[in-house]
Amino acid sequence: MGTEYVDDDTRLLHQYIDKCSNWGRWGPDDQLGALNLVGPEEVRRAAALVRKGIPISLTLPYDQAGPQPGGFRDNPQLLVTASGTDHVSGAQDQLPGGFGPARGFGFSDDVLVMPTQCGTQWDSLSHIFWEGKMWNGRSAGQVTSGGAAANGIENYTGRVVMRGVLVDLPAHRGVESLEPGEPITPDAIEEVLAAHDVTVRPGDALLVRTGFMAARRGHWGDYAGGPAPGLSLHTAPWLREHDIAAVATDTWGVEVRPNEIGYFQPLHIVSLVHGGIAFGEMFDLDALAADCAADGVHEFMFVASPLPITGGSGAPVSAVAIK
Amino acid sequence: MGTEYVDDDTRLLHQYIDKCSNWGRWGPDDQLGALNLVGPEEVRRAAALVRKGIPISLTLPYDQAGPQPGGFRDNPQLLVTASGTDHVSGAQDQLPGGFGPARGFGFSDDVLVMPTQCGTQWDSLSHIFWEGKMWNGRSAGQVTSGGAAANGIENYTGRVVMRGVLVDLPAHRGVESLEPGEPITPDAIEEVLAAHDVTVRPGDALLVRTGFMAARRGHWGDYAGGPAPGLSLHTAPWLREHDIAAVATDTWGVEVRPNEIGYFQPLHIVSLVHGGIAFGEMFDLDALAADCAADGVHEFMFVASPLPITGGSGAPVSAVAIK
Amino acid sequence: MGTEYVDDDTRLLHQYIDKCSNWGRWGPDDQLGALNLVGPEEVRRAAALVRKGIPISLTLPYDQAGPQPGGFRDNPQLLVTASGTDHVSGAQDQLPGGFGPARGFGFSDDVLVMPTQCGTQWDSLSHIFWEGKMWNGRSAGQVTSGGAAANGIENYTGRVVMRGVLVDLPAHRGVESLEPGEPITPDAIEEVLAAHDVTVRPGDALLVRTGFMAARRGHWGDYAGGPAPGLSLHTAPWLREHDIAAVATDTWGVEVRPNEIGYFQPLHIVSLVHGGIAFGEMFDLDALAADCAADGVHEFMFVASPLPITGGSGAPVSAVAIK
Amino acid sequence: MGTEYVDDDTRLLHQYIDKCSNWGRWGPDDQLGALNLVGPEEVRRAAALVRKGIPISLTLPYDQAGPQPGGFRDNPQLLVTASGTDHVSGAQDQLPGGFGPARGFGFSDDVLVMPTQCGTQWDSLSHIFWEGKMWNGRSAGQVTSGGAAANGIENYTGRVVMRGVLVDLPAHRGVESLEPGEPITPDAIEEVLAAHDVTVRPGDALLVRTGFMAARRGHWGDYAGGPAPGLSLHTAPWLREHDIAAVATDTWGVEVRPNEIGYFQPLHIVSLVHGGIAFGEMFDLDALAADCAADGVHEFMFVASPLPITGGSGAPVSAVAIK
Repeated sequence: MGTEYVDDDTRLLHQYIDKCSNWGRWGPDDQLGALNLVGPEEVRRAAALVRKGIPISLTLPYDQAGPQPGGFRDNPQLLVTASGTDHVSGAQDQLPGGFGPARGFGFSDDVLVMPTQCGTQWDSLSHIFWEGKMWNGRSAGQVTSGGAAANGIENYTGRVVMRGVLVDLPAHRGVESLEPGEPITPDAIEEVLAAHDVTVRPGDALLVRTGFMAARRGHWGDYAGGPAPGLSLHTAPWLREHDIAAVATDTWGVEVRPNEIGYFQPLHIVSLVHGGIAFGEMFDLDALAADCAADGVHEFMFVASPLPITGGSGAPVSAVAIK
Repeated sequence: MGTEYVDDDTRLLHQYIDKCSNWGRWGPDDQLGALNLVGPEEVRRAAALVRKGIPISLTLPYDQAGPQPGGFRDNPQLLVTASGTDHVSGAQDQLPGGFGPARGFGFSDDVLVMPTQCGTQWDSLSHIFWEGKMWNGRSAGQVTSGGAAANGIENYTGRVVMRGVLVDLPAHRGVESLEPGEPITPDAIEEVLAAHDVTVRPGDALLVRTGFMAARRGHWGDYAGGPAPGLSLHTAPWLREHDIAAVATDTWGVEVRPNEIGYFQPLHIVSLVHGGIAFGEMFDLDALAADCAADGVHEFMFVASPLPITGGSGAPVSAVAIK
Repeated sequence: MGTEYVDDDTRLLHQYIDKCSNWGRWGPDDQLGALNLVGPEEVRRAAALVRKGIPISLTLPYDQAGPQPGGFRDNPQLLVTASGTDHVSGAQDQLPGGFGPARGFGFSDDVLVMPTQCGTQWDSLSHIFWEGKMWNGRSAGQVTSGGAAANGIENYTGRVVMRGVLVDLPAHRGVESLEPGEPITPDAIEEVLAAHDVTVRPGDALLVRTGFMAARRGHWGDYAGGPAPGLSLHTAPWLREHDIAAVATDTWGVEVRPNEIGYFQPLHIVSLVHGGIAFGEMFDLDALAADCAADGVHEFMFVASPLPITGGSGAPVSAVAIK
Repeated sequence: MGTEYVDDDTRLLHQYIDKCSNWGRWGPDDQLGALNLVGPEEVRRAAALVRKGIPISLTLPYDQAGPQPGGFRDNPQLLVTASGTDHVSGAQDQLPGGFGPARGFGFSDDVLVMPTQCGTQWDSLSHIFWEGKMWNGRSAGQVTSGGAAANGIENYTGRVVMRGVLVDLPAHRGVESLEPGEPITPDAIEEVLAAHDVTVRPGDALLVRTGFMAARRGHWGDYAGGPAPGLSLHTAPWLREHDIAAVATDTWGVEVRPNEIGYFQPLHIVSLVHGGIAFGEMFDLDALAADCAADGVHEFMFVASPLPITGGSGAPVSAVAIK
């Protein structure tokens, strides 16, 4: 029986992969994926959504109060290499580097140590593999200890300027947060979009708010890595049919955890590895949600270009919704 | 005579500080500085500049090929914690964290180590001190080994959405690059703006291209820290009179090096510490310059929100000009 | 009454400082402290204690399973920059650095990120300050964001070769571990030494085992930073009278926590800052204790030279007792 | 002809591997290699060599002045997380971690970032691979992005307590340094040993001084990675016949560079991968050499236990010769 279950899961996964794959759609050398769906027309339409002139940040602070429990991925650590206390104590009276006497001048400096996947971030198309392959059929072996020779996050830089649509599930349902393990189905998305009076278009970024960040903020527990609400695997065909270019959530991993079938992160396998859709994680959608609730407008210009970390499995991003 | 020279420099510096200071202008608690000049009206006008629908990245790759010579500030290093070669070699056949058998799933992960000031970056208002004080009169002693308790770079996050104007000096003069030590005066800026047929407005970001990055790219030498073309100290009153909110260049330190008077980085002292103007450094303006030269349009929407690195002396940024 | 209590504490602290200070004892420029007590005679005597020819490591593994809870001090992290999986996957078929085809050769490489105080380690004489001063009366201001310009841990390198004496309190008392908050008094030390049939000499290292590491190993909880058994403040005069050169324990911070008077880590203030005694923390004394219990010999050659991390507040050490 | 050359090299390499391999000698599970040759007898004899009572450090400072050129391997960086300037500026008046008012107490703290192979260090038996295998026939695939699951450097910890013999080539020849590319042959070693009036025994550490560190100290150039004097490949059988347990040099990579045959680092392939001999690199032998020249004694107790960095490809070590 367990074997049959597994067989059904395997059958479903392959069926979704076949249905949703974009491998080759933008040529054999493509490293950008579904962000190819965003062209000049889409950028112009996005800019036209700026009506109030209000930018809203969607990025969690990068600091030790972040959601990571430590270990494999830790929270960002800022290590100071020159400080104001050095300056006021006289330790900077001679400038470094042979620049001579400071004559009142002082400065601070610091080094950041952070896992690229530790906070608000885009996955790159080299972050997830399936049976030895990554996006567009390239070998996973191209991602070595030296980083990704292909499909790295730098491919997204300068490209994430697009229309964004907020799907605010807890607001629609009148709850603080969806529950861990609760999958978000295509029907649920459609229902909320209808309530928000907004439709999606090819090349959109879908920002799906579960409320789970709001529920856990500051007392994160197993927020990063544990059970969470999130997109159902069964949204994969819907995302493909609507040519959604990017999806971001206020959870650790976009998709519902535990997973709905006997595969780990199957939506990543289908929609990221094969669909080439940009996956954004731990986006802070709460301030945006408050603004959308207040003015009833759930579409906006979305600018979220990741740092061009060459070969990165992902990158932090200062994401902004502009209304 | 040496003493008199010093006296003249000191007199000039204090005169410029008095003339250009914005301390208190936005209240005693302000940590945002001249970016306060960007309000909804300015954001809307910026978005209206999106005509072609073309985003252009202004950020250098963050990697070991960057401009830093090592030592105090090094180039970004990406340290891989899970690789595609692990996956293809079978080392990921069991997922970490007790997630069970991989069943074909694999992933990469990595950690970034980078000085916040090593590449394309905004200085924070806690980066520079003058006689024990930083922006808005706060004590430099608030910037400790733990980071900046005030004026940190996180204050800029979500706020750098504005009109940008490119001042392309080498294109105007028909040279590859200005020379190290060559100061850019207010007259020079005005002349180029006139040639570009563009005027600046309060709350603008001024992107000043010297060509020095183009001249040094890939064989950086002393690009970071050595002699460079840059803004003259004497632009300080001009920046203040025009209420420029942000200035960014394609050089290491915005202002000309060596400095024009016997003080280190005096424009930082006047316009950053006292004026509160956002200083952007090592912006890659070459692709933007090519586009502006081609269509004759030197104004654009400028979105360059830095990572919210709490307490940071600066932050990397994925800056985008959208035309 | 609270004030009187404070006054008594202050009086006692100053009395102990006066009694135990070694400032100036080895000249005004000394940066070595009580390790000066170890001369050639002491080194020869230490070597003469090697009777069985058995070295025993006293250092905890440096890895993610260490005792740190994260945050300010984290456990050591090893970041791999070249791997065997790269090699077997063919990613090393060309050597880096232009070294040509690998022809079967492969290699691994890695980077270590670790707080110097995160595991088995010596405090340097620049680690603790008292009212603006550190060891030998130097200004704490010499320890900047760039590290310690004086009294750094490199001064200990090559010098920690000496006689060691184990004081095994739980073995003597027949318990697994002393309790958090339980102070170890001079009388208790004397009693255990007598039972071990060993006497201390000037220039010795005293290794004090509380059993607390054994009790917490692998389920550390608040081992690092929380309440712990440890040396009483009142051992300060005893350590000074016996000219103990170094003291190390199997706890986070050598001295008992919570502290016995209204000052934080007062034994550090008296015996490290003023006495110049080397303090060793989180030494793993369990294997040594088992050996000493078996053969009844509690003295040995002790070689525990820390890494010469220039300007370090401390350093990890591969400490060895040789019997 | 090129092919024949390659064939001769290949034939020689395999001949040496066959002759020198110790795979299986200490059982199929062994991860210690030739250090198994050091038993209680050898440790006692080593301790008996302590006659003067003088320890001499053999470790280069770990700091930014080290020999690395940056890039793949950089010099150690110490990042300060709490400073004396914080203390004197009042920023520590409240202790962190809720420990309350400092009442005069202050402290420093720091984080070390260093490649394990950047300075004085032991290679682990997981550092080098040959055709998919490492020491004792284990698969190189056991060394992943998470570190070495077998043969890691922690196996050496507590074991490097042995007799050391200095082979001082430049002193014998009356030169400052051997030249880059100059191989040290078995005959040359025998000649110097005879001149030093010392013989090697099974389980010894052979410390071979080329003078190259003395020649390059402080102006390192391509010291790390470039041409260097070093052991000839043809010492491999000699090392094996004499059952040398460890060999360390004052150069980057033990063996001569460029290599003598068409394989990269063939002595590593033969004597480390197959012989299991401990390889120590960038040992600072100059102070030891001066002492040996002065007293004519070239044998000593050698204690050089590396940090137990779990799974490390190598580890820094505070090595001490005790005479």
